[in-house]
Amino acid sequence: MATIKSQIAVVGATGLVGLEIQKILQERYSGLISSGQLQVKLFASSARPGDKVLALSDSWGELAKCDYILNASSSEVAVELREKLKPNQVLIDNSSAHRMDPEVPLIVPEVNLELIDSNPSVIANPNCTAILLCVALKPLMEFGLQRVVVSTYQSASGAGVKGLEELDAQLNNFNPEQLKKNDCPVFGFPLAGNVMSHNTEIRGMDVVGSGYNEEEWKVIEESRKIIGILHLAISATCLRVPVRRAHTESITVDLKLEVSLEKLREAYSQASGIKIVDDWENNHFPMPLESQNQDLVYVGRIRKDATIGRAVHLLISGDQIRKGAATNAVQIMEALMKRRGQLD
Amino acid sequence: MATIKSQIAVVGATGLVGLEIQKILQERYSGLISSGQLQVKLFASSARPGDKVLALSDSWGELAKCDYILNASSSEVAVELREKLKPNQVLIDNSSAHRMDPEVPLIVPEVNLELIDSNPSVIANPNCTAILLCVALKPLMEFGLQRVVVSTYQSASGAGVKGLEELDAQLNNFNPEQLKKNDCPVFGFPLAGNVMSHNTEIRGMDVVGSGYNEEEWKVIEESRKIIGILHLAISATCLRVPVRRAHTESITVDLKLEVSLEKLREAYSQASGIKIVDDWENNHFPMPLESQNQDLVYVGRIRKDATIGRAVHLLISGDQIRKGAATNAVQIMEALMKRRGQLD
Repeated sequence: MATIKSQIAVVGATGLVGLEIQKILQERYSGLISSGQLQVKLFASSARPGDKVLALSDSWGELAKCDYILNASSSEVAVELREKLKPNQVLIDNSSAHRMDPEVPLIVPEVNLELIDSNPSVIANPNCTAILLCVALKPLMEFGLQRVVVSTYQSASGAGVKGLEELDAQLNNFNPEQLKKNDCPVFGFPLAGNVMSHNTEIRGMDVVGSGYNEEEWKVIEESRKIIGILHLAISATCLRVPVRRAHTESITVDLKLEVSLEKLREAYSQASGIKIVDDWENNHFPMPLESQNQDLVYVGRIRKDATIGRAVHLLISGDQIRKGAATNAVQIMEALMKRRGQLD
Repeated sequence: MATIKSQIAVVGATGLVGLEIQKILQERYSGLISSGQLQVKLFASSARPGDKVLALSDSWGELAKCDYILNASSSEVAVELREKLKPNQVLIDNSSAHRMDPEVPLIVPEVNLELIDSNPSVIANPNCTAILLCVALKPLMEFGLQRVVVSTYQSASGAGVKGLEELDAQLNNFNPEQLKKNDCPVFGFPLAGNVMSHNTEIRGMDVVGSGYNEEEWKVIEESRKIIGILHLAISATCLRVPVRRAHTESITVDLKLEVSLEKLREAYSQASGIKIVDDWENNHFPMPLESQNQDLVYVGRIRKDATIGRAVHLLISGDQIRKGAATNAVQIMEALMKRRGQLD
């Protein structure tokens, strides 16, 4: 039960993440919303009267009344939201604008929720691939993280509605070999029937780390910040696969301590935010077709390396729009509301 | 020019690899075949008069006349072929029956072709994923291989015609969420719109290496034998993606020596069997849609690890039916023929 009336703003309400946030708020708080205890206000770059979406540029007054601002819009909007933030408002920002700001906590509730104790006015929601990875790494932290290597199998919807539509058009008329570069404005190459390097810019200027793309840097830098080991040896190779929704990751972790397979499995069975899918008999492991539309990160193929004693392998899959974005943001808000007595 | 008339048997001529071998023989030796200098005889489990395919069980006499037997059939057939081998016949076996036999050389021409110098009567053609990996690792061997970690993005046709047909049926009527387990006899789960662990059995009995599947063990054990480092620290995670043809691999290699990015690129530019696709400006890297139907292994995303000085990363893609099977077998045969003066 809400004891104080709270207002929640969803900014960027018409994008994939904004729509998912609305869905999750309804799933979790439909009673409080219909009783008026919780009010959800929707904002986007342009108004949509039928959907009750307000144009942000005309509606700063409405926004100023909200207690929690969940930004699912761009980094540019995020910067403006932060500048105009009122005392007692909290901005939970899904853009990348503030993630690496040392004054902004970057939170995955399963890993570092205690950072809300400092009453931050801005909290950053991490990159989707980093969120899924960090949830899966958490149970290993008791054994000490020495090094992490991850290769990803990322879905089209990670590039938003336009990415999803581009893949869908290719799947609905499957003939990727006939597609030209102009037919693929989002991904640059056909994604149906293909695998490709992530469609973000490559950094080429540095000597160390030359050739990594922006997505890989986000995974590296944000995971270090979330886990709290700023010099963790971690590398990522981020690829797209012709999957509509949910990202999959193949993860190798070198641990500081030796650990048995039994102990490893026990650690995962007790972890929060995780569903173990590790059925050796039936070859049933995490798959995006099953992890999509779920809040839990599916973890399986839990193995000790066949040759290096302290290395372990995991295969994980999780919905990057839910736990990788919308769910994570709502979980942070929910924890803040409970802490402030606005929610039981 | 052939100076001595040679006869080549293709066993399992009606499968994907058998058909590809015929295609490659025509591409390379159409003149010699049409002049009768090279004779190609086709064998399968049942005869197909129109295709001039002989039933193996009725045709051992015909097979006995062949100089080179390229087996693209099962391990059971491979064992029988080896038992009935005549003096001077050479069996080049694409099945897994003899690969780990210490008396049988396991050859990737770019890596260890010198093993033909012992005049072996049986030569094993490695697993497709291992062949592509070893071609890509060869240029790094001068810097010393300390450890290899590979995650794969394998295509449906790696499971043969039936695997390809199963994916095609799903792609031609895209609705993977409506598919049932019974609709997916080859892969067990829908592959379209999905990513899944490789459809081979998991070994669960051992303490070390529990949970690895057969494909992963092949990559580990065969790569060690091909490279000639029997205790190389190497691990594989083998997954299938909804790609029709050509496998992709994300590879991390820890080297014994420190090496600059420039030197690394130079090593690859001089390597044989490799095409470098590493265009940072245009985000153009190895992709199965481009590497399919090619003989070269496409290599790109060549990076030094951002955090571990002696680790490097590669993304590779190659046609597992051609270089991963048929081309590799024909290359071995060609080298033998040249050595014996049967081919200039």
